[in-house]
Amino acid sequence: MTVPATTRQLRSLVTPEGQVRISLATVDTPQPRPHQVVVRVEAAPVNPSDLGLLLALADPGAAEVDDSPEGPVVTASVPEAAMPSMRARLDQSLPVGNEGAGTVVAAGDSPEAQDLLGKRVGFSGGGAYGEHALTTAQACLPLPDGATAADGAASFVNPLTALGMVETMRREGHTALVHTAAASNLGQMLARVCLADDIGLVNVVRRPEQADLLRDLGARHVVDSSAATFMTDLVEAIRATGATMAFDAVGGGRLASDILNAMEVAVTDPDAPYSRYGTDVPKQVYVYGSLDRRPIELRRGFGFSWGVGGWLLMPFLASLPVDDLVRLRSRIASELTTTFASSFTEEITLDQVLDLDVLRRAARTSTGEKFLIVP
Amino acid sequence: MTVPATTRQLRSLVTPEGQVRISLATVDTPQPRPHQVVVRVEAAPVNPSDLGLLLALADPGAAEVDDSPEGPVVTASVPEAAMPSMRARLDQSLPVGNEGAGTVVAAGDSPEAQDLLGKRVGFSGGGAYGEHALTTAQACLPLPDGATAADGAASFVNPLTALGMVETMRREGHTALVHTAAASNLGQMLARVCLADDIGLVNVVRRPEQADLLRDLGARHVVDSSAATFMTDLVEAIRATGATMAFDAVGGGRLASDILNAMEVAVTDPDAPYSRYGTDVPKQVYVYGSLDRRPIELRRGFGFSWGVGGWLLMPFLASLPVDDLVRLRSRIASELTTTFASSFTEEITLDQVLDLDVLRRAARTSTGEKFLIVP
Repeated sequence: MTVPATTRQLRSLVTPEGQVRISLATVDTPQPRPHQVVVRVEAAPVNPSDLGLLLALADPGAAEVDDSPEGPVVTASVPEAAMPSMRARLDQSLPVGNEGAGTVVAAGDSPEAQDLLGKRVGFSGGGAYGEHALTTAQACLPLPDGATAADGAASFVNPLTALGMVETMRREGHTALVHTAAASNLGQMLARVCLADDIGLVNVVRRPEQADLLRDLGARHVVDSSAATFMTDLVEAIRATGATMAFDAVGGGRLASDILNAMEVAVTDPDAPYSRYGTDVPKQVYVYGSLDRRPIELRRGFGFSWGVGGWLLMPFLASLPVDDLVRLRSRIASELTTTFASSFTEEITLDQVLDLDVLRRAARTSTGEKFLIVP
Repeated sequence: MTVPATTRQLRSLVTPEGQVRISLATVDTPQPRPHQVVVRVEAAPVNPSDLGLLLALADPGAAEVDDSPEGPVVTASVPEAAMPSMRARLDQSLPVGNEGAGTVVAAGDSPEAQDLLGKRVGFSGGGAYGEHALTTAQACLPLPDGATAADGAASFVNPLTALGMVETMRREGHTALVHTAAASNLGQMLARVCLADDIGLVNVVRRPEQADLLRDLGARHVVDSSAATFMTDLVEAIRATGATMAFDAVGGGRLASDILNAMEVAVTDPDAPYSRYGTDVPKQVYVYGSLDRRPIELRRGFGFSWGVGGWLLMPFLASLPVDDLVRLRSRIASELTTTFASSFTEEITLDQVLDLDVLRRAARTSTGEKFLIVP
């Protein structure tokens, strides 16, 4: 394997003055430690979680691009309200890209790392938006024969998140799920997992055409939050599935509250004696995204047996017994082009990320478009 | 033991038209089943949780009293916004009073019930606001020699809640607590428990004089939410104690959010690398009351490792292994007049509850006044 001495990486930096600066840096190609590998990146998806780090909540519509001796630099203003949360990253040139696929071109001395040398893998780890990425052997999934880099580029975050939601549901004693922003790439994957595993799933979407997309997939319970009948529809679907756990990508406004209230109505036995503490059926909403950045507003009509909390993939994986992780990863590998297929609408190069028109389109988190970076 | 054929009970009824009606009903004295006992009530405290059922959220300031053939009836309007939550209790004449103390005057056939006959007990179970109350043998705590009915009247709800908070903290791996509305009777009890057990406790109060009250008790960390320096004080106290779990009686507005944000600031290592997902330190707020009836507003600056949820005494007790329950109850019995002492500022009769002036004063949940009903 030939590994060049230097490599190019996409970087994002927030200045104390409130500007985000996005550029391509040329850096020394990293040297792997014993348990690490260097992947020559062939494909990396643009996930909403990547955009958060890349753009630092700035509006790409108002971004500008300047030339510098090191090449173009995209600059945009970080909203003032978001600056306190940027404190810990100020003035740091951060690599971007949570996952990708490519070929392992250098490996540390450990047997696990050496074993991957020359193989095409999907991988997770920061810095996937670059020509080469450093990650651990454990964070690599060798791709099945015939799988392309595009097939494997999104084999970590969304597949493990979808399976992680189902595992969390089982672990906490629930039997069916509600999912919001359900027409997303992740949402479609979760819908396929739930269909395959015969798990009740209430898909909450924001527009009628998203409902159609999910119904075409075979989803049985799709509820449109823009419909006048939303609350009734939601109660009905929750009653039909018995869903008492929700995963919410929206994370602002009243949606989490609406879901808890609908669950409470659905599980209340109209013939049971009155309790002003509500039912004793546990109802849980896990917030795993921030599509709506307003505060979460909880209108408590759902008794006292409820919880709302944050959910993140990495802490979940850290809590998972190794055997379970192996089981999930084997499943992803064997269903990579079916259950866990991602479809990308556009391939772009690293340089094109600094093209304002391309960046603006890639930054839209609306469903239906999904970009793949091909370094 | 002589048990009269009939007995008087305080009742609360909500009409479909939105009126709450409070009256004294004369009913047949209940007959105990094998595991039950009848207590001749000698004292019952007016807890905030009792007022919720008694008043149905109506404002006692606007209440009226009418005479009826069965005696006076207090009527008041239930706020329209609260009517949906009253649906399950409409037209039902409900007994009131969650706990009290008195003498067991009749017992079922079971040995546990028989064993209590003639003893003075503290007890829990609805209907404590009456001359006689029916409850289970298990829900009775025989009072130590020399303890008065007033000493034992509040030996269930607040003592077990205070101890339940500490048990929950330990069970979920936290080491110190934040408590809101900390100057309440319960809050003072929790402060004494935490002092005795050397547990860090951040007491959040709403007024300077409440802070003084707690400091006089020996509380080391008291934070006044009306102070301009509230957030800084809160972060400081959380940092000093390491509190990552809170019990919140307020349950509306931004207080839960403020606590989570303060915890996140307190646990963030300023030298750690930036993570836009926040720290991985679990932060939990349990909401156990509704002093503020506005929605809970969560302003997410606290990463993804957080939870907010409902907490109630009864489900907690149901989840507690029997040995642990015995341990908690033994402790309450032996520290009834010290750690778990309640002080009452006024004793009133059952008939006086229907006196508008007395009712209005008893219904104030501000600290410093605590009423005891002496049937």
